[in-house]
Amino acid sequence: MLNASIITIGDELLIGQVIDTNSAWLARALNPIGISIQRRLSVGDNPNGIRRALDECLSCTDLVFITGGLGPTSDDITKPLLCEYFGGKMVMNEQVKAHIEHLFEHHLKRPVSHRNLQQAMVPDVCTVIPNAQGTAPGMLFKKGDQLIFSMPGVPFEMKSMMEEHVLPMLKKTFPLPPIQHRTLMVSGIPESNLADLLVPYEAQLPKGITISYLPNFGLIRLRLSADNISPAVLDEQFNMLQLAVEPYLVVNEDISIVEVVARKLTEQKATLSTAESCTGGFLSHRITSFPGSSQYFKGSLVSYDNEIKQRVLGVKESTLMEHGAVSEPVVIQMLQGVLDVMQTEYGIALSGIMGPGGGTPDKPVGTLWIAAGSREIQRTKCIKLRYSRQNNIEAAAVQGFHLLLETIVSKP
Amino acid sequence: MLNASIITIGDELLIGQVIDTNSAWLARALNPIGISIQRRLSVGDNPNGIRRALDECLSCTDLVFITGGLGPTSDDITKPLLCEYFGGKMVMNEQVKAHIEHLFEHHLKRPVSHRNLQQAMVPDVCTVIPNAQGTAPGMLFKKGDQLIFSMPGVPFEMKSMMEEHVLPMLKKTFPLPPIQHRTLMVSGIPESNLADLLVPYEAQLPKGITISYLPNFGLIRLRLSADNISPAVLDEQFNMLQLAVEPYLVVNEDISIVEVVARKLTEQKATLSTAESCTGGFLSHRITSFPGSSQYFKGSLVSYDNEIKQRVLGVKESTLMEHGAVSEPVVIQMLQGVLDVMQTEYGIALSGIMGPGGGTPDKPVGTLWIAAGSREIQRTKCIKLRYSRQNNIEAAAVQGFHLLLETIVSKP
Repeated sequence: MLNASIITIGDELLIGQVIDTNSAWLARALNPIGISIQRRLSVGDNPNGIRRALDECLSCTDLVFITGGLGPTSDDITKPLLCEYFGGKMVMNEQVKAHIEHLFEHHLKRPVSHRNLQQAMVPDVCTVIPNAQGTAPGMLFKKGDQLIFSMPGVPFEMKSMMEEHVLPMLKKTFPLPPIQHRTLMVSGIPESNLADLLVPYEAQLPKGITISYLPNFGLIRLRLSADNISPAVLDEQFNMLQLAVEPYLVVNEDISIVEVVARKLTEQKATLSTAESCTGGFLSHRITSFPGSSQYFKGSLVSYDNEIKQRVLGVKESTLMEHGAVSEPVVIQMLQGVLDVMQTEYGIALSGIMGPGGGTPDKPVGTLWIAAGSREIQRTKCIKLRYSRQNNIEAAAVQGFHLLLETIVSKP
Repeated sequence: MLNASIITIGDELLIGQVIDTNSAWLARALNPIGISIQRRLSVGDNPNGIRRALDECLSCTDLVFITGGLGPTSDDITKPLLCEYFGGKMVMNEQVKAHIEHLFEHHLKRPVSHRNLQQAMVPDVCTVIPNAQGTAPGMLFKKGDQLIFSMPGVPFEMKSMMEEHVLPMLKKTFPLPPIQHRTLMVSGIPESNLADLLVPYEAQLPKGITISYLPNFGLIRLRLSADNISPAVLDEQFNMLQLAVEPYLVVNEDISIVEVVARKLTEQKATLSTAESCTGGFLSHRITSFPGSSQYFKGSLVSYDNEIKQRVLGVKESTLMEHGAVSEPVVIQMLQGVLDVMQTEYGIALSGIMGPGGGTPDKPVGTLWIAAGSREIQRTKCIKLRYSRQNNIEAAAVQGFHLLLETIVSKP
């Protein structure tokens, strides 16, 4: 196993303007080829912070992956700083220059400026990593046996560089066994009760296998991670874990609840639609985030306004008047409406108050009604959510998918 | 100005299973009270990694904010480790114990276990920070003048602890001027051309004000950050910047394009609906992420299936046959359909191929058609996106909002 650090560079990461998604992607790409991330560090566009980050990471890991700070503007200082840090001088790289000229002429279709061509200047102590998607070249530096990769912060440029150049090179240079993870998902048991249940299981876990608990809105992911353990031993332990949590087991893979729903529906060749009020299209978005969702998903009616609930979904005005939009009778009518309009076998309907405003003493912020099922079997549920607006929306979606799953599984 | 580090703890952050959103939230909460984040570090649930992170962060910043690793399960090692690091021993805290018992009796409504009560054990060298939302107490350690805060990784527990206890305490202890940022958004100019345009502007920027470029799907955010500069000087520089980029200026605040659209529509007391195919509800989700969106947003018709485009939105079968679902005539009919069904003044309709599959030689992956506008004014646009599925969906939404904005602004 090789140890690696990730350094992401950019003031925007430190003032909270941008959320770092590159690190998670890098970890997911590197684990399967036996490279373990020991630390992730974000620093600003400032020379001392970057130097210190390099010193620290090179003192404890074999590989360092750097993203960010390679653009053409004045705040991008990573390249000259790495040049100085590794004792080189900047030189024009003719291949990079030709690539930039080609990109401008054939793809961007505008004249190439002096500033753009300056991006072809690279330290003479690095190996250039081509950037098919953009103008900033990647760089590979060596320090003894240690390798330092510098890549752009733009996610699709970094990913393409990793996939086309860095990962193949690492696989060839370091043929390592993969770092293995096995994940399952349980529901219907609090985290601390689950931990109590698993005391005997944890006591017998062989050295080299660790267990992690990841609770998330009423579902808990349990992960086994193995370092230098044969796949057979890990699989045996994973089977034992599944038996131990059997009554609560939702799925024995690291897939989201949406993917579980997708799989069940595809198996049954059944179709799904959603009628969303408070979640405002988030269920539909989660479903369609996965390629292939058109196999079973027909669409969603986001009826944010009560008028739309009546006119498009056929919710009765009298029901809205008597029970309010956030009520069991309304979500049942929304479900019936969407099954009719979309002509699908299954549906999910949600109505709730996601906050921060809109609560009443009767129906405080966080009140959520869900109906899910088919024409034959329908279930409803009322939940009190207690998070921020964004988290309430996410939690509502998880609960909606969960209720649907219960009705699919209970199908006669 | 005080310098701070953020350490987030958890193996899930290093294997890419979870994306760290706590750090961005913390930075946004701390900057306004004059605390600057110098570095963010994520390490796994492992003693050496955590010790090393503490050593490094305490060697360069005044404050350290730690999140994660405080749960009741075996993989949560932060508390005993901090106890050892700061030379304390674990003792039962009666107030925390009473809080946990209260939480189980009145809110969770299940018996409290020995494992839950163990969470009331805290190092005798820390000050307890109450956790109103959960069972794991926060902790404040001191080392000379340095303060170290340890909080749960569960976002809503951490946020509530910060808002109720940590931020008020920091404001009182360190009355500091805020770290100031001014952000504007431009479109219609490539980043490098913008940088060329701003060479004279950047040359005259006073010391203490820095400029950053944040490109994102065809829009660029420009940010001025000031350290020890009077607000009047920063405002003057920001005004000059607005003049310099005037032809490309979209908005002179750090708000997203959705918020710009929201503001324009609310000003006009106009309503909006969306007809989404390839974006699968993402526009609707982005719109309804903001509280108050019900003021102008009526709903969305996610017509993922062509049958729904016909039956619900009234797209003609002959148009679908002749031009295909991803075409100008189809998005125009989708727009007309959604304006009719939802009875709104404005609408956005999108149809495209987000990938990775589904492309043809004529219409490769990334092809997107948008129509936006009202009954009176409609604009259409064809765009070639070149990102991953998820990023294509996000970019499509940005372009959709942008096209709508053009029609709203051009309203006679």
